Amino acid sequence: MNAIILSIGDELVLGQTLDTNSAWLAAELATLGCGVRRHVTVADDRNEIAKAIRRAAEECDVLLVSGGLGPTADDLTRQAMSDALGQPLEINPIALSQLESFFQRRNRTMSASNRVQAMLPRGTNVLENTRGTAPGIAATIGNCRIFVTPGVPEEMREMFRRLIAPRIAAEARGAAICSRVLHTFGLPESVIGEKLGDLMDRRRNPSVGTTVSQGLISLRINARFASRQEAMEELEKTDSLCREKLGSLIFGRDEQTLAEILGQMLAGKTISTAESCTGGLLAKLLTDVPGSSKYFLRGWVTYSNESKTEMLGVPEELIRDHGAVSEPVARAMADGAQWRAKTDFALSITGIAGPDGGTPQKPVGTICFGLATKDAVTARTFLLPGDRQMIRLRAANMAMTMLRFHLLNLLIPF
Amino acid sequence: MNAIILSIGDELVLGQTLDTNSAWLAAELATLGCGVRRHVTVADDRNEIAKAIRRAAEECDVLLVSGGLGPTADDLTRQAMSDALGQPLEINPIALSQLESFFQRRNRTMSASNRVQAMLPRGTNVLENTRGTAPGIAATIGNCRIFVTPGVPEEMREMFRRLIAPRIAAEARGAAICSRVLHTFGLPESVIGEKLGDLMDRRRNPSVGTTVSQGLISLRINARFASRQEAMEELEKTDSLCREKLGSLIFGRDEQTLAEILGQMLAGKTISTAESCTGGLLAKLLTDVPGSSKYFLRGWVTYSNESKTEMLGVPEELIRDHGAVSEPVARAMADGAQWRAKTDFALSITGIAGPDGGTPQKPVGTICFGLATKDAVTARTFLLPGDRQMIRLRAANMAMTMLRFHLLNLLIPF
Repeated sequence: MNAIILSIGDELVLGQTLDTNSAWLAAELATLGCGVRRHVTVADDRNEIAKAIRRAAEECDVLLVSGGLGPTADDLTRQAMSDALGQPLEINPIALSQLESFFQRRNRTMSASNRVQAMLPRGTNVLENTRGTAPGIAATIGNCRIFVTPGVPEEMREMFRRLIAPRIAAEARGAAICSRVLHTFGLPESVIGEKLGDLMDRRRNPSVGTTVSQGLISLRINARFASRQEAMEELEKTDSLCREKLGSLIFGRDEQTLAEILGQMLAGKTISTAESCTGGLLAKLLTDVPGSSKYFLRGWVTYSNESKTEMLGVPEELIRDHGAVSEPVARAMADGAQWRAKTDFALSITGIAGPDGGTPQKPVGTICFGLATKDAVTARTFLLPGDRQMIRLRAANMAMTMLRFHLLNLLIPF
Repeated sequence: MNAIILSIGDELVLGQTLDTNSAWLAAELATLGCGVRRHVTVADDRNEIAKAIRRAAEECDVLLVSGGLGPTADDLTRQAMSDALGQPLEINPIALSQLESFFQRRNRTMSASNRVQAMLPRGTNVLENTRGTAPGIAATIGNCRIFVTPGVPEEMREMFRRLIAPRIAAEARGAAICSRVLHTFGLPESVIGEKLGDLMDRRRNPSVGTTVSQGLISLRINARFASRQEAMEELEKTDSLCREKLGSLIFGRDEQTLAEILGQMLAGKTISTAESCTGGLLAKLLTDVPGSSKYFLRGWVTYSNESKTEMLGVPEELIRDHGAVSEPVARAMADGAQWRAKTDFALSITGIAGPDGGTPQKPVGTICFGLATKDAVTARTFLLPGDRQMIRLRAANMAMTMLRFHLLNLLIPF
């Protein structure tokens, strides 16, 4: 079973909007065992859409079309489907009643333009949209099953998961691809690659590849087997092998963030932060996690030298003798934060995020970190690569990584 | 003159990598006056690539192909081009010498696998790659000019700008499309749309559309005219008309951020922040701007009630009587921050970002803001929509917007 993904929209063809729907649909189809043959993107042009639909229908078992179902004059996918099928558009009573109840539930009156959205080509079936007003369309041309969804990502995803995926899963006979991403932070991609060794052999199944994103080095495991169950089992085995090679370097998987994992590891203990060059980013990442108010109590953004002294009690002479970017100052910042916030832990960051402010001794990317516990204060210095934004992100991740290894009772392996 | 954009790669078709090349190329082509007919993405499959090239060549004047030119066995675009052209692959002496000098400049020895990259279909021309090892290919099938570039974005972009864009610009006779984005924050899309009125007419040229991203409502102006110069002139006129309708609601354009604009408007004055529910995000956004240490001095993240009292001097009874999320507390936070930091301005945010913590009186999204100047402290409350992440982002934007309107000597228009 193979599929073609067709995206519709002027903004996509003109390059004004990045097409995230196609990639999302492709990844979903892969896990269902439905191979993807190609992606095609065309403009809001009735003839082009109709031609693309007819052509694709000759070459695949499943055609997924998204976009162009809105209520306005530039939404032409309904008309193009009508052309491709050779069937007139007519009000679909089920679609109309779903649309009416959608508006009723929201205490809104339905406008005439929305009524257009209930027009479907004769002989096709409606796919209910629970998140918006554009109903989807299910149809067939020859042996090709066609599913048309709105282009709004959340509406498309919900409709795909609830109504389309089950139908494809029931018929897909191809290899199922199951994927997982494991995240590491701190070591460069080349070192992670060396540690993984043969696991990264291109011919291996499940395959293991590395990707770099948001300052993290992540492993992507793809398992391609006859059934979803077999693929999942093999995925788990390769997951274990990766963990054998990398151990505690792996902090989480898929959507998990370092801050979320750290929050779980704190297990009732509390934390505060003292930041200079990251300017609040560390506190922001920690408090991205819902419920973080249970363990994150206070943060200081001490951007100026005076603020380090006045807010955290960093001795002036320490800054004068060692500079604001130094381990003694990082230590004093963490100590001052922990003492003032009365938290179990405090993390501090002081460094040079650039683009200006670097010196030969302390180039841009030089960042000092402090970690205060109830018993001791430690400090480390790292030279982090990247531009201002990336250095700040890596610095916040590094601070969290210091605490993570402390909570694991392990030395930081870099 | 019209183009088709063909992207090649298993990782794209499988949805593991987002295709950013196609959107970038499409936007570039638009400014050159070359319309884009469609985007197509196929896997690293020799037959599929060759078929896609032949088919596209029949339907367009320019075919841009990217990806699949690497040195390894899974890079098959060279072979597919050879098939599509019906010409054998052979060592191209110019490509080989460019490749050799690429390695020489880096004091590296060229491996045998890289030599493969100098193989081009007979009768085609090399496009030099100054950023990497994969040379591009220029060829023609019938009336279609084909340009093949590497898939690595920076290599592709450099090659396109230097070698491909000039050739297309010389021949493109179509309309040039110039675009600009203007950003607003605070009013909903529907109200912005009403204010713009006829400017949003679909048939208008330049066209004006609204998009929602990162909590901002932005206007995209597309001007499509015979020449680039005319398009730019008309773009400026429509830009002025939009500014007439929206006035100070527009804070910036294209890549400009609210924090960057605010930094410019501060003009030597200083700022500090006191944040509860945004957890450092406001400070983070303000310090994203290089050079922000000149005006951003200090920030407090007072997540707990005690920290508001101890760090900022918010009276306990104020929190007890009004709750931590209240205008009196927001006012006291801003006042405390401004007094302690001795800054010209202080911004405070206290609210309920969710998902938990809402009440019927103060539902999730209820956020109170304070702005302290040297003369006065004001507070406002807004109910912001969205999930935790979006509420936090909107709250940070709202705080900056309060200060922006203060610096403009205007009342906030919402």
